[in-house]
Amino acid sequence: MQPVNIKEKFSLFNDYFNPRIIGELNGQHVKAAKLKGEFAWHKHENEDELFFVVHGLLKIEFMDKTIEINEGEFIIVPKGVEHKPVANEEVHVLLFEPATTLNTGNVTNKFTKEKLETI
Amino acid sequence: MQPVNIKEKFSLFNDYFNPRIIGELNGQHVKAAKLKGEFAWHKHENEDELFFVVHGLLKIEFMDKTIEINEGEFIIVPKGVEHKPVANEEVHVLLFEPATTLNTGNVTNKFTKEKLETI
Repeated sequence: MQPVNIKEKFSLFNDYFNPRIIGELNGQHVKAAKLKGEFAWHKHENEDELFFVVHGLLKIEFMDKTIEINEGEFIIVPKGVEHKPVANEEVHVLLFEPATTLNTGNVTNKFTKEKLETI
Repeated sequence: MQPVNIKEKFSLFNDYFNPRIIGELNGQHVKAAKLKGEFAWHKHENEDELFFVVHGLLKIEFMDKTIEINEGEFIIVPKGVEHKPVANEEVHVLLFEPATTLNTGNVTNKFTKEKLETI
Protein backbone atom coordinates (compact mmCIF):
# COMPACT_ATOMS: atom_id res chain seq x y z
CA MET A 1 0.00 0.00 0.00
CA GLN A 2 1.64 3.20 -1.20
CA PRO A 3 0.72 6.43 -3.00
CA VAL A 4 0.57 6.33 -6.80
CA ASN A 5 1.81 9.48 -8.50
CA ILE A 6 -0.10 10.07 -11.72
CA LYS A 7 2.56 12.16 -13.48
CA GLU A 8 5.23 9.64 -12.59
CA LYS A 9 3.18 6.82 -14.09
CA PHE A 10 2.69 8.77 -17.32
CA SER A 11 6.45 9.34 -17.52
CA LEU A 12 7.02 5.57 -17.77
CA PHE A 13 5.66 5.03 -21.28
CA ASN A 14 5.21 6.91 -24.52
CA ASP A 15 3.11 4.80 -26.86
CA TYR A 16 -0.48 5.64 -27.70
CA PHE A 17 -3.66 3.64 -27.17
CA ASN A 18 -1.88 1.14 -24.93
CA PRO A 19 -3.35 1.51 -21.43
CA ARG A 20 -1.30 0.52 -18.41
CA ILE A 21 -2.84 -0.75 -15.20
CA ILE A 22 -1.88 1.49 -12.28
CA GLY A 23 -4.39 0.34 -9.68
CA GLU A 24 -6.88 -2.41 -8.90
CA LEU A 25 -9.78 -2.44 -6.46
CA ASN A 26 -13.11 -4.19 -6.14
CA GLY A 27 -12.63 -5.96 -9.47
CA GLN A 28 -12.03 -2.64 -11.20
CA HIS A 29 -8.88 -1.34 -12.84
CA VAL A 30 -7.44 2.14 -12.81
CA LYS A 31 -5.52 2.60 -16.05
CA ALA A 32 -3.32 5.31 -17.52
CA ALA A 33 -3.30 5.84 -21.27
CA LYS A 34 -1.79 8.29 -23.73
CA LEU A 35 -3.95 8.94 -26.76
CA LYS A 36 -3.15 10.62 -30.03
CA GLY A 37 -5.08 10.28 -33.25
CA GLU A 38 -8.33 8.47 -33.93
CA PHE A 39 -9.24 5.28 -32.13
CA ALA A 40 -11.75 2.76 -33.55
CA TRP A 41 -15.51 2.69 -33.13
CA HIS A 42 -16.52 0.16 -30.49
CA LYS A 43 -18.74 -0.50 -27.52
CA HIS A 44 -18.46 -2.49 -24.30
CA GLU A 45 -21.38 -4.87 -23.91
CA ASN A 46 -21.08 -5.23 -20.15
CA GLU A 47 -18.91 -2.42 -18.84
CA ASP A 48 -19.46 1.26 -18.18
CA GLU A 49 -16.24 3.16 -18.80
CA LEU A 50 -14.93 6.32 -17.14
CA PHE A 51 -12.48 8.61 -18.95
CA PHE A 52 -10.80 11.21 -16.73
CA VAL A 53 -8.70 13.70 -18.71
CA VAL A 54 -5.57 14.78 -16.84
CA HIS A 55 -3.85 16.44 -19.82
CA GLY A 56 -5.11 17.73 -23.14
CA LEU A 57 -8.48 17.75 -24.86
CA LEU A 58 -10.29 14.50 -25.57
CA LYS A 59 -13.12 14.26 -28.06
CA ILE A 60 -15.41 11.28 -28.01
CA GLU A 61 -17.58 10.73 -31.04
CA PHE A 62 -20.97 9.13 -30.51
CA MET A 63 -23.49 8.18 -33.15
CA ASP A 64 -25.41 11.42 -32.75
CA LYS A 65 -22.87 13.90 -31.38
CA THR A 66 -19.29 14.62 -30.35
CA ILE A 67 -18.46 15.50 -26.75
CA GLU A 68 -15.33 17.38 -25.68
CA ILE A 69 -13.74 16.47 -22.35
CA ASN A 70 -11.24 18.98 -21.08
CA GLU A 71 -8.44 18.60 -18.56
CA GLY A 72 -9.96 18.15 -15.12
CA GLU A 73 -13.15 16.61 -16.46
CA PHE A 74 -14.43 13.07 -16.74
CA ILE A 75 -17.18 11.34 -18.66
CA ILE A 76 -18.87 8.01 -18.09
CA VAL A 77 -19.74 6.07 -21.24
CA PRO A 78 -22.48 3.56 -20.39
CA LYS A 79 -22.27 -0.05 -21.50
CA GLY A 80 -23.62 -0.67 -24.98
CA VAL A 81 -22.96 2.84 -26.28
CA GLU A 82 -20.87 3.02 -29.47
CA HIS A 83 -18.03 5.52 -29.16
CA LYS A 84 -14.78 6.59 -30.78
CA PRO A 85 -12.14 8.54 -28.83
CA VAL A 86 -10.27 11.15 -30.87
CA ALA A 87 -7.22 13.11 -29.72
CA ASN A 88 -5.99 15.75 -32.15
CA GLU A 89 -3.07 16.43 -29.81
CA GLU A 90 -1.64 14.14 -27.15
CA VAL A 91 -4.09 13.41 -24.35
CA HIS A 92 -3.48 11.71 -21.02
CA VAL A 93 -6.43 9.90 -19.53
CA LEU A 94 -7.17 7.81 -16.49
CA LEU A 95 -9.63 5.00 -17.10
CA PHE A 96 -11.74 3.43 -14.41
CA GLU A 97 -13.54 0.27 -15.49
CA PRO A 98 -14.04 -3.41 -14.66
CA ALA A 99 -10.96 -5.62 -14.94
CA THR A 100 -12.79 -7.56 -17.67
CA THR A 101 -12.80 -4.57 -20.05
CA LEU A 102 -11.11 -5.05 -23.44
CA ASN A 103 -9.89 -1.73 -24.86
CA THR A 104 -11.61 -2.24 -28.21
CA GLY A 105 -14.75 -3.74 -26.68
CA ASN A 106 -16.78 -5.73 -29.19
CA VAL A 107 -14.28 -5.49 -32.06
CA THR A 108 -10.77 -6.78 -32.67
CA ASN A 109 -8.37 -4.69 -34.69
CA LYS A 110 -4.88 -3.21 -34.70
CA PHE A 111 -5.62 -1.37 -31.45
CA THR A 112 -6.67 -4.45 -29.50
CA LYS A 113 -4.59 -5.17 -26.39
CA GLU A 114 -5.48 -8.56 -24.96
CA LYS A 115 -2.99 -8.27 -22.08
CA LEU A 116 -2.19 -5.01 -20.34
CA GLU A 117 1.00 -4.22 -18.50
CA THR A 118 0.86 -3.22 -14.85
CA ILE A 119 3.24 -0.39 -13.97
CA MET B 1 -24.08 11.61 -20.70
CA GLN B 2 -22.01 14.74 -20.26
CA PRO B 3 -18.59 15.81 -18.97
CA VAL B 4 -18.22 16.30 -15.22
CA ASN B 5 -15.94 19.17 -14.25
CA ILE B 6 -14.16 18.39 -10.99
CA LYS B 7 -13.50 21.97 -9.90
CA GLU B 8 -17.08 22.91 -10.61
CA LYS B 9 -18.34 20.07 -8.44
CA PHE B 10 -16.09 21.14 -5.56
CA SER B 11 -17.45 24.70 -5.84
CA LEU B 12 -20.95 23.44 -5.01
CA PHE B 13 -20.37 22.63 -1.35
CA ASN B 14 -18.21 23.69 1.56
CA ASP B 15 -18.75 21.29 4.41
CA TYR B 16 -16.16 18.73 5.48
CA PHE B 17 -16.36 14.94 5.64
CA ASN B 18 -19.63 14.90 3.71
CA PRO B 19 -18.94 13.22 0.37
CA ARG B 20 -21.13 13.97 -2.65
CA ILE B 21 -21.78 11.47 -5.41
CA ILE B 22 -20.63 12.86 -8.75
CA GLY B 23 -20.65 9.70 -10.86
CA GLU B 24 -21.86 6.11 -10.90
CA LEU B 25 -20.68 3.16 -12.97
CA ASN B 26 -20.59 -0.60 -12.62
CA GLY B 27 -22.00 -0.45 -9.11
CA GLN B 28 -19.25 1.96 -8.06
CA HIS B 29 -19.53 5.58 -7.01
CA VAL B 30 -17.27 8.49 -7.79
CA LYS B 31 -17.49 10.90 -4.89
CA ALA B 32 -16.08 14.34 -4.15
CA ALA B 33 -15.24 15.27 -0.57
CA LYS B 34 -13.63 18.16 1.25
CA LEU B 35 -11.69 17.14 4.32
CA LYS B 36 -10.31 19.20 7.17
CA GLY B 37 -9.31 17.93 10.56
CA GLU B 38 -9.18 14.39 11.87
CA PHE B 39 -11.67 11.77 10.76
CA ALA B 40 -12.45 8.67 12.84
CA TRP B 41 -10.68 5.32 12.83
CA HIS B 42 -12.64 2.78 10.80
CA LYS B 43 -12.40 0.04 8.21
CA HIS B 44 -14.59 -1.22 5.40
CA GLU B 45 -15.24 -4.94 5.72
CA ASN B 46 -16.08 -5.51 2.07
CA GLU B 47 -14.86 -2.54 0.09
CA ASP B 48 -11.49 -1.38 -1.14
CA GLU B 49 -11.38 2.41 -1.20
CA LEU B 50 -9.47 4.75 -3.50
CA PHE B 51 -8.53 8.28 -2.38
CA PHE B 52 -7.36 10.57 -5.19
CA VAL B 53 -6.05 13.91 -3.89
CA VAL B 54 -6.87 16.78 -6.24
CA HIS B 55 -5.98 19.57 -3.79
CA GLY B 56 -3.91 19.68 -0.64
CA LEU B 57 -2.05 17.09 1.38
CA LEU B 58 -3.87 14.11 2.84
CA LYS B 59 -2.43 12.00 5.60
CA ILE B 60 -3.87 8.59 6.32
CA GLU B 61 -2.95 6.98 9.60
CA PHE B 62 -2.70 3.21 9.70
CA MET B 63 -2.01 1.03 12.70
CA ASP B 64 1.72 0.85 11.91
CA LYS B 65 2.46 4.00 9.91
CA THR B 66 1.17 7.24 8.42
CA ILE B 67 1.16 7.75 4.65
CA GLU B 68 1.11 11.16 2.96
CA ILE B 69 -0.79 11.50 -0.29
CA ASN B 70 0.00 14.64 -2.24
CA GLU B 71 -1.98 16.43 -4.92
CA GLY B 72 -1.96 14.29 -8.07
CA GLU B 73 -1.57 11.06 -6.16
CA PHE B 74 -3.97 8.32 -5.14
CA ILE B 75 -3.88 5.47 -2.67
CA ILE B 76 -5.99 2.33 -2.47
CA VAL B 77 -6.89 1.21 1.04
CA PRO B 78 -7.78 -2.49 0.93
CA LYS B 79 -10.88 -3.83 2.64
CA GLY B 80 -10.38 -4.71 6.27
CA VAL B 81 -7.57 -2.21 6.86
CA GLU B 82 -8.12 0.21 9.74
CA HIS B 83 -7.40 3.79 8.71
CA LYS B 84 -7.94 7.39 9.78
CA PRO B 85 -7.76 10.25 7.26
CA VAL B 86 -6.24 13.46 8.60
CA ALA B 87 -6.17 16.82 6.82
CA ASN B 88 -4.25 19.56 8.62
CA GLU B 89 -5.35 22.00 5.92
CA GLU B 90 -8.32 21.68 3.56
CA VAL B 91 -8.00 18.73 1.20
CA HIS B 92 -10.12 17.86 -1.81
CA VAL B 93 -10.36 14.18 -2.67
CA LEU B 94 -12.12 12.04 -5.20
CA LEU B 95 -13.23 8.68 -3.88
CA PHE B 96 -13.81 5.59 -6.01
CA GLU B 97 -15.57 2.80 -4.20
CA PRO B 98 -18.58 0.48 -4.32
CA ALA B 99 -21.97 2.12 -3.98
CA THR B 100 -22.46 0.10 -0.80
CA THR B 101 -19.65 1.93 1.02
CA LEU B 102 -20.55 3.74 4.24
CA ASN B 103 -18.15 6.62 4.92
CA THR B 104 -17.39 5.49 8.47
CA GLY B 105 -17.27 1.80 7.56
CA ASN B 106 -17.72 -0.46 10.58
CA VAL B 107 -18.46 2.31 13.07
CA THR B 108 -21.26 4.81 13.56
CA ASN B 109 -20.44 8.24 14.92
CA LYS B 110 -20.90 11.97 14.31
CA PHE B 111 -19.27 11.62 10.90
CA THR B 112 -21.60 8.90 9.63
CA LYS B 113 -23.59 9.84 6.50
CA GLU B 114 -26.20 7.21 5.75
CA LYS B 115 -27.48 8.97 2.65
CA LEU B 116 -25.25 10.92 0.31
CA GLU B 117 -26.35 13.71 -1.96
CA THR B 118 -25.78 13.43 -5.70
CA ILE B 119 -24.64 16.68 -7.31
